[in-house]
Amino acid sequence: MGILPFVAELGLVDHHCHGVLRTDSTREEFESLLTEAAAPAPGTTLFDSAVGFAVRKWCAPLLDLPRHVSPEAYLERRNSLHITEVSRTFLTATGTLAYLVDGGFQPDRLLSFRELGDLGDGAEAHEIVRLETLAEEVRASGAGPRAFADAVRAQLDASSAVGAKSVAAYRIGLALEGSRPSDEDVARAVHGWSGERCASEVLTRFLVWEAIERRLPVQFHVGYGDSDASLHRCDPLLLTDFLRATESRGVPILLLHNYPFHRNAGYLAQVFTHVYCDLGLATHALGHQASRVFAEALEIVPFGKFLYSSDAFGLPELYYLGALLFRRALSDFLASGMKQNAFTESDAVRIAHLVASDNARRVYGL
Amino acid sequence: MGILPFVAELGLVDHHCHGVLRTDSTREEFESLLTEAAAPAPGTTLFDSAVGFAVRKWCAPLLDLPRHVSPEAYLERRNSLHITEVSRTFLTATGTLAYLVDGGFQPDRLLSFRELGDLGDGAEAHEIVRLETLAEEVRASGAGPRAFADAVRAQLDASSAVGAKSVAAYRIGLALEGSRPSDEDVARAVHGWSGERCASEVLTRFLVWEAIERRLPVQFHVGYGDSDASLHRCDPLLLTDFLRATESRGVPILLLHNYPFHRNAGYLAQVFTHVYCDLGLATHALGHQASRVFAEALEIVPFGKFLYSSDAFGLPELYYLGALLFRRALSDFLASGMKQNAFTESDAVRIAHLVASDNARRVYGL
Amino acid sequence: MGILPFVAELGLVDHHCHGVLRTDSTREEFESLLTEAAAPAPGTTLFDSAVGFAVRKWCAPLLDLPRHVSPEAYLERRNSLHITEVSRTFLTATGTLAYLVDGGFQPDRLLSFRELGDLGDGAEAHEIVRLETLAEEVRASGAGPRAFADAVRAQLDASSAVGAKSVAAYRIGLALEGSRPSDEDVARAVHGWSGERCASEVLTRFLVWEAIERRLPVQFHVGYGDSDASLHRCDPLLLTDFLRATESRGVPILLLHNYPFHRNAGYLAQVFTHVYCDLGLATHALGHQASRVFAEALEIVPFGKFLYSSDAFGLPELYYLGALLFRRALSDFLASGMKQNAFTESDAVRIAHLVASDNARRVYGL
Repeated sequence: MGILPFVAELGLVDHHCHGVLRTDSTREEFESLLTEAAAPAPGTTLFDSAVGFAVRKWCAPLLDLPRHVSPEAYLERRNSLHITEVSRTFLTATGTLAYLVDGGFQPDRLLSFRELGDLGDGAEAHEIVRLETLAEEVRASGAGPRAFADAVRAQLDASSAVGAKSVAAYRIGLALEGSRPSDEDVARAVHGWSGERCASEVLTRFLVWEAIERRLPVQFHVGYGDSDASLHRCDPLLLTDFLRATESRGVPILLLHNYPFHRNAGYLAQVFTHVYCDLGLATHALGHQASRVFAEALEIVPFGKFLYSSDAFGLPELYYLGALLFRRALSDFLASGMKQNAFTESDAVRIAHLVASDNARRVYGL
Repeated sequence: MGILPFVAELGLVDHHCHGVLRTDSTREEFESLLTEAAAPAPGTTLFDSAVGFAVRKWCAPLLDLPRHVSPEAYLERRNSLHITEVSRTFLTATGTLAYLVDGGFQPDRLLSFRELGDLGDGAEAHEIVRLETLAEEVRASGAGPRAFADAVRAQLDASSAVGAKSVAAYRIGLALEGSRPSDEDVARAVHGWSGERCASEVLTRFLVWEAIERRLPVQFHVGYGDSDASLHRCDPLLLTDFLRATESRGVPILLLHNYPFHRNAGYLAQVFTHVYCDLGLATHALGHQASRVFAEALEIVPFGKFLYSSDAFGLPELYYLGALLFRRALSDFLASGMKQNAFTESDAVRIAHLVASDNARRVYGL
Repeated sequence: MGILPFVAELGLVDHHCHGVLRTDSTREEFESLLTEAAAPAPGTTLFDSAVGFAVRKWCAPLLDLPRHVSPEAYLERRNSLHITEVSRTFLTATGTLAYLVDGGFQPDRLLSFRELGDLGDGAEAHEIVRLETLAEEVRASGAGPRAFADAVRAQLDASSAVGAKSVAAYRIGLALEGSRPSDEDVARAVHGWSGERCASEVLTRFLVWEAIERRLPVQFHVGYGDSDASLHRCDPLLLTDFLRATESRGVPILLLHNYPFHRNAGYLAQVFTHVYCDLGLATHALGHQASRVFAEALEIVPFGKFLYSSDAFGLPELYYLGALLFRRALSDFLASGMKQNAFTESDAVRIAHLVASDNARRVYGL
């Protein structure tokens, strides 16, 4: 099924992504960034996956290769070009008007949000501040337990980010308590901090509440990610107490990715006025099956509560596939609804704009 | 796809619903009853949802409006009519032969079960007693800790209800122990009761066991509901110990709604001889996507174990959409099976009658 | 939709099944083995289920009966034949080249793995050692707490099994710790062992680690099973800590069945290099709906990580339906992908061989 013209032409706001790599990739690195696996199992290749087939089908032609070219031929051609040209090609093909970039993971390997926007056809680019990284930087700067809370506040006050992000899912899971920690609690938690990483329930809650106080929309990584996440602690339903405690503030909470808990996320986005969700990361990971899961994600979420993101990281192909497979899935959803006469074409056009950009612009105040 | 004639003509037993509102609704009230959200997020409307589109498509013609009319025009027309006429119109269109009504929530706003049956083309109407409400009434009547158990028993003995319902999911979650509490346990729990609401694991278990002793089928709210539920404590699998402990009694346990845990509910209904399930509430909430989820709900549940309910509350539109979307989903399921030659038409007709009414009549002894 | 010729012709490696019954079955026994229910509810029959309809449609013709024959006529015809002939007919029709048989449950009622292979057109047959059964035998043989660990090791060293299986899901759930227990820990756990069954987290972990030490691939029962399992403790995500702890050993861990957690299993199989999964048991239980769930199971799992199994037990019909519905589901998945041009026919043929047999041969070293 082709893409509906009004969906093909949508300008996207990618409300959650990372930077692209500054350099070419070996096959090993390419495979390691293609899925959430660190490496293929012996005797297998990660090109034999939904996203691997999607690269061979959809990305090859943009490098002037035939569809379904072999992985070897694809990578050979890709590495014969300058990585900047490759990135520009794929980013431009996404049709993205604005990128909201979490630059808090491996910043040295990746383009910054400004560089990403420039390379992507001069798109708007905004920063999302990763709260755990900010906390780690504050601590590394020498702030002691008593000074920590105010130092975090000063950093957030000075930030030009349009939103904040927590990777609690990777550190402590999503079962956050609701209440706002006192500075006493924070000092105690900083005192007990061991290791490099911020992995404290109290500090996570503190960070998120500070973002909320500044009316910064807060993104949570939810569900699908690499093996460093403990997925059984990443069900968004575990956030229920926290969502109840924060609803009256009216600051948006955005549940990212969500697969395979996307129905749970849609439920939360329906029943809590301040909750929103997306299907980033999963959309390109699902390849040609993305449309079915996308339809599931839209089962009960109000259409004013669902956003687009690519969650692309490193490989420029993933920005393109994220955008393309989102368009296909949205188009399939709307075309199916129109065919069933569930809604009119003008309703479909309105939903398309809500999901592609309007919801994000409203939520982040862009 | 149209509805198979033998499905269109089925008389339904709606084994779980509530009453309809006695009065007209403002747009604010209408939106608050349309989904499980209390209110729309700023800048959005809950008409932009699957069920909102379903109202505009399916309900509008019954009020002599064109399909897909705007929310404003819909509500204006609706409020120009007498609410009793509106309710009669939608209830009659459901094709329901019998309603089993949980009248334990907001009884002052809603028609009683008898009034509902009368308005609905003179359908049979039966009461389902809400156990937590009964317990709260017994306590409010002044029964102390020692008298409580017997007072509950007397109320149940005097009740003409055909089944009982627990909202444990909203109060304590579904992780009930199996054993039957002693009167000593009950007295202790009543002694420790604070607040208005019955929210004690011991008391819930006591209430359910008393219902089972009287051979009253017991309904459990499971899954999808408003933000007052903690969905991660509402997975029906949490009932496993309780189901194991009660199976030998042979009294039916009915798992209501179940979305997004409908596959888990189907599993329980397969492996425990006394467990049954439905897809109430979700069916209309899912709008034009109800058929896919309905097919999922029927994956492994034996066809003698699945029932129809609307779980409609307040808005007469929801009774109609519950019944209509159930018929469509059942028809789609059966038509697809017949097209694949998975079963014969006479099998399909038999399944249709089981699910629409026969299972409910057998389970509740109607 | 018919089955693609190259899928119809695939030779299968059934990497997890049990033996077939030695004797005819009464209707009561047949129904009790058809699903995971012990018995039908009063007034119902388990033939009214997806797998019941599949028997009537697909199995009847192999006994020279018309499709969709009644359960009574089916069982009458079946019992008029010699059970060995019935079993040979269905086993031969599976197209299985190799069976990996868990003979650890009810061995007296069932054919051994060698007998199964012989009856199944002379297929290869290999043993999978059930770890809890081995532990119970070691204990029953009189090994005391101090001798237990070495006695288990001796048994494993002497075994010719090509893999091991744990039914932790039925005994203690899947929330295993990661670390390898010391012999001290084991002695203590054996000392505390009460009852017949091995149901100790420490002993389970010990058994699995001993298998890993011997580089025996380890199968875990996950998800769908009878009411003896507590499904909420059978989510494969609960294995995360254990999988993290064992990944560096490189010994395959195979997640069996997985429904309704098949997406979670696919996730684990993607992110952990040593994890593999299947959809055994569910495939035949789902009957004509198997293809949809199969497509879900293949959403993010790399194609080098998914295997075929029937998990058939007792009834020869279940081996046939397991194989047939697997072929149909795989064919539907590949045909849909080719129709969308998501991959080429030669890719499809390669995936088919990986999933049907090559992955199993690589994992088990057959």
